[in-house]
Order: sequence, then structure tokens, then C-alpha cells
Amino acid sequence: MKKHNYSAGPCILPQEVFEKSAQAILDFNQSGLSLLEISHRSKDFVAVMDEARALALELLGLTNKGYQALFLAGGASLEFLMVPFNLMKENGKAAYLETGTWASNAIKEAKSFGETLVVASSKESNFNYIPKDYTVPADADYFHCTSNNTIFGTQMKTFPELDIPVVCDMSSDIFSRVLDFTKFDLIYAGAQKNMGPAGATLVVVKESILAKTGRNIPSMLDYEKHIKADSMYNTPPVFPVYASLLTLQWLKNLGGIEAIERINNEKAALLYAEIDRNPYFEGTANVADRSHMNATFLLKNQEQAPIFDALWKAAGISGLPGHRSVGGYRASMYNALPLESVQVLVNVMQDFEQKMSESNF
Amino acid sequence: MKKHNYSAGPCILPQEVFEKSAQAILDFNQSGLSLLEISHRSKDFVAVMDEARALALELLGLTNKGYQALFLAGGASLEFLMVPFNLMKENGKAAYLETGTWASNAIKEAKSFGETLVVASSKESNFNYIPKDYTVPADADYFHCTSNNTIFGTQMKTFPELDIPVVCDMSSDIFSRVLDFTKFDLIYAGAQKNMGPAGATLVVVKESILAKTGRNIPSMLDYEKHIKADSMYNTPPVFPVYASLLTLQWLKNLGGIEAIERINNEKAALLYAEIDRNPYFEGTANVADRSHMNATFLLKNQEQAPIFDALWKAAGISGLPGHRSVGGYRASMYNALPLESVQVLVNVMQDFEQKMSESNF
Repeated sequence: MKKHNYSAGPCILPQEVFEKSAQAILDFNQSGLSLLEISHRSKDFVAVMDEARALALELLGLTNKGYQALFLAGGASLEFLMVPFNLMKENGKAAYLETGTWASNAIKEAKSFGETLVVASSKESNFNYIPKDYTVPADADYFHCTSNNTIFGTQMKTFPELDIPVVCDMSSDIFSRVLDFTKFDLIYAGAQKNMGPAGATLVVVKESILAKTGRNIPSMLDYEKHIKADSMYNTPPVFPVYASLLTLQWLKNLGGIEAIERINNEKAALLYAEIDRNPYFEGTANVADRSHMNATFLLKNQEQAPIFDALWKAAGISGLPGHRSVGGYRASMYNALPLESVQVLVNVMQDFEQKMSESNF
Repeated sequence: MKKHNYSAGPCILPQEVFEKSAQAILDFNQSGLSLLEISHRSKDFVAVMDEARALALELLGLTNKGYQALFLAGGASLEFLMVPFNLMKENGKAAYLETGTWASNAIKEAKSFGETLVVASSKESNFNYIPKDYTVPADADYFHCTSNNTIFGTQMKTFPELDIPVVCDMSSDIFSRVLDFTKFDLIYAGAQKNMGPAGATLVVVKESILAKTGRNIPSMLDYEKHIKADSMYNTPPVFPVYASLLTLQWLKNLGGIEAIERINNEKAALLYAEIDRNPYFEGTANVADRSHMNATFLLKNQEQAPIFDALWKAAGISGLPGHRSVGGYRASMYNALPLESVQVLVNVMQDFEQKMSESNF
């Protein structure tokens, strides 16, 4: 049966990425060798890394604008400490917006480097909205925010315009919507949502903001060292980088971020309309801040959960349960999830409504 | 034509690892989903991580001996700083043995944490031997060494018996030979030689040596945090971990480290015998310290290189050129390289000898 994969990440990727990456493991570029057994310094893999870096910048509209793209390892969690190491001056300070669990984790790591000001937080309401009225001190070394909050289903729709570097963790919505990416000075993202499989991390950094802290940065945590080495300071995560390149190529062939944003808007509109219309469900996130990647919703009567759960499982849907800190359901609609899968979920919600209205539940 | 892959890493892996991992990308455990699109918290992937960790300890003879195995990201280069972060006390000191480029890099990173004593070095002779007469201060926080030096073709045959923690970078010879692994307190290894593809790093650590430094360790660099989270503190590099598990399963089915050591000894004996016998070649490493993983050798007359190079390329051999800092050739004979491939190289060396002896070169 056809699967409809709503996993929050690692998550669905385009079918052609699975097929091409599996083929490369058996025989890469008709070389007679597997992608897994060739040197990362070989001509063929250097070409992969170079194209992935260039294509990431191209899709974001950042080619020839003073930015460098890096494919690193360690996930976004490693960036939580690389960012302050590279950007927070000795005895400096940083400003953070706290919009979810991952933002909180980033704040925790920054605190061991210096003064870390939380300019606003929605923690008191279990992060169900994006704070909007806050002031960022002009003397902070940088401002850090999280563009999309997978767990809570919220997404920043606008970003502050500041005279200090703006850093954004875009792990869960990069390449999903049109933004003026030149407004950001450092963007990072774990690959495992819209960019590829787990194991690679994209860092896009404006070179001019680096080397200003006076800190002694360990080599592996130093963006400048990675830039100088063309993102090959040490052996990179070869397969995750290659599968990320395939995913970016798929996106480019589809028409880039503008094209996927139209599809993502359509998917989100379809599902949120049903959540709002269907009397048995309710959304958990503030409507204005709803994420187009992760829709979080609850059954109004939690005792009906076994019936709803049986229906969506029977329809081939997987990965729908919400994070334990929110409960209910989370439909993750990343780039590669087809509109068809959202229609299947909406149909299940309507079937459920029908069944409930006919029963005595 | 059959390929004979002598790449120094990433390198040849067992054919069944290529086949099974490619299949898992198309359909993992007959779930209808790709390994790349499932949650790392799913039952199926948690089972992969658990088995990989247990099997690594089992193969090393470290089950139930106070050790934990972790599969992390970032490569051995990230361990260069995680080791001092976790083991070097504030105002403490560490002792390092310098046997090659990677040891030098580890020393460089440790220096930013505190006093880093180089107890011995073979740098003055381009690392062509392993220093043997050295004293490790009893008050050092730990002793660090590198068991095998890929670039220079040397390998430690014995290890000092010390009352302080012994840390060993075994990136290029882990799982290749029988050692009493209980003599080590922390072993780390980038996967991409004998354990799997690039993108995962194995860390095996005796828990009792941790939490003694008084340092505030960033979460992602803290071994204890990774242990508490069962090696899932953040999203792990899913595919590299899975392919590593397949490689460890292959090794176990073959008979474990004892079985592969016999094959590795046979391969090394065959090639070194030819290097020593053939009048056109010479080895570069001190004979007593020769690596069973990487045999480095030169043509006595470098002008003959084009002729030799044409011969081994015609025989399907790849990855034979030496590292630029040594020159000549490097035959990397990792676990998955079959004896047959070594025989092909030896045959080529003998063909070359024949051709040269018949020519006026």
C-alpha cells in the first residue's frame, strides 16, 4: 500500500533521491566503485561537494553576495555552540528569541560563552505563538532566532531588521519558502527535513562577520577553517552530502523555492482549512503563526483517539503522533510530501467526522 | 573489469554492505519506507543503534566491562577536542605521542586546553618509525596515541602500560587486529576505514574516567550527555550508523577480529615480501613498525613511475598513489580488501620487474 509519511524528521525525501542514492552506492558515476568506497578527495566527490555548495547558495539567491556555504557534520546542535564560538566576543553578549525547545537548547549552549539575553519567549504558553514585540540591543554581537518550530507548529513570518548580524536556525523550513535571505548573516540547518538525510548540516555564512571575537576557536568549530578548506577540513559525511545534492537538484528542476512554496502553501491551506472546519479537531498554534511545515492539532475529545488512530493507520499514514510535549497530532508537510498525502489525511479526518456523527461517542 | 580498491579512506567495504545498505534506502526492513525517511526515534532505528553499540563492544571484548560505545558525528577530528574537554583537568596536563600528521593535529587541539606534553616524536624523520623509548609523567591526566598512521605506513605494535587513562585514535586500524582493548580507557575511530562509510565516529569509553575535570563542557562535546541519551542526544547520522552496523555484522559472521587478523597478516606478508624482494621497489617505513593496513613504498627510480602506473591502472587497481607528504605509493589493505587484490598488485610489481629487466631503462 502507498505510504503517506508525515515523520517530523528525518522525513520523506523525493523518490528520485532514494533511487539515485541507492544506485550510487552500488556504482557511482559508472566508475565500477561505490560512492561509499571512494576518496573524498577524488575528482568525482570534490565535484559533488562543490556543486552542493554552489547550488545551496543559488537556490537561496546568495550567489556572489559574500556568502559561503558549508556542509558540516554534527547537526544543528553542534551549531548551537559554533555560533557563539565564532560570533560572541570575549565579554560580549548575544540576543536570542526563544520560540521552542531547540531555541532553548541554543540559548543554554550560548550561556556558557557569555551574556545571553533572551529578548522574548513564549515558553509560558508552551510556545504556541511567536513573540512579536521585543527589542534587540544594538550592542549585542548577534541576534539568534529559529524560523520554524517543529514541535509546536509555529513559524516566524517576519524577521527583525537589525544592524547586528542576524543568525537563524532554519533546520525545519529551509528551502521551503521565499525569503530575502540577504537579510540573514548566518543560516544553519540540519539536513534531515527539506535538504537530505540525517548526517549533514548546511551552514551559510556571510564571510565579513567572521574573525571578530578574539577567541581561540578549536579548528573543527572554526567556520573560517572550514571555508579555507572548501568544506573539506576533515573527511565530510560523504553519503549525506551526496543525497543532499540530489535533493537540491530535485528542487531546482522543480523550479526552485518559488515553485515549492506554492505547493507548500496549497498543502498547508488544505489541512488547516480542515482542522478549522472539522468540529472534532482543533489546532494548537496561534493562527497567525501557524507553520506551513508542521501542523499541530488535537482531538477535542481525546478519548476518540483510538478510533482516529485506526483510521489514519489504515490509510497508510505514518508519523502522525505529536511530540510528547504537545500531544495530539503533528502533520509534517515537508517539501517532498505530495499534496496527495495531505488529501488522504483530510479524507480520513472527514471519514472520522462522519463515523463520529453516526455513533453515540 | 574487476576493481581493486586501495583507497586510503573512505575505502573499500564488503560488497554485502553496499548491497544491503542500497536496499535499505529503497525499502527498510520491508516497511515500505526508506531508511532515509524514518524517524531516528522509530523502533526500527533505535534497534539499529542499540545493536551497533553492543556489537562494537562485543567485537572488542569489552561487553560488561564498564565501557560504553557511542556513534557520534564529526569524525576523529572532532574527538581531538572532545578528548581534552572531557579528560584534561583545569590547569591539568596531557601526554601525547607524536607519530604522524593526525597525532600532530590532536596535539595542536589539546594545546588550547592546557599543558600538552609531547613525550616523543618521529617528526624529524618524516614519521617513518614509532618512537619507543619515552616516559609518560605519572601525573598527566591522560596519555594519547595513534595506533596506525595511514600517511606514513607505521603502526604501534605495543602500547605503554600506564596508571593513567590511555586514549587511542584507532581510526585506521580498529577491528583489524587482536589487542587487549581493556588496556585502553578511551578509543575513538572515524568509521571510514574498517567500520563503515564516512559520517560516523565510534567512541568507546570507560565510564569511570569521565566527569573529573571540573570543566563546563558544551552539551554536544560531553561524552556523558551522549551516554545518558543512548547515543541519540541529537539526530545521529542515520545512514552511516546503519552501514557501520552492516560492516560489523559482516565481521562477526566472518569470525570476528581474530579471523580478520589472520587474513590481514596474510595480505601484509604477501605485499611486504614483494616490496623487499623486488629490486625496483623499497619500503619507506621502519620494518619493525610497518603497518598491516597501509604499506608505503617507492620506486627506487622515480622516472619509471609512468610505466608502473600504467601497469597497475590496466590491472584495475585504484587509489594507489601515496600521500603528497611521502610520495610514491600507498597500498591500503583494510579489512574488506580481499587477498586476491593484493595478489593482483604483487603480480603487477613482478610484471614491472620483468619489463624493466628486459628494457634499457
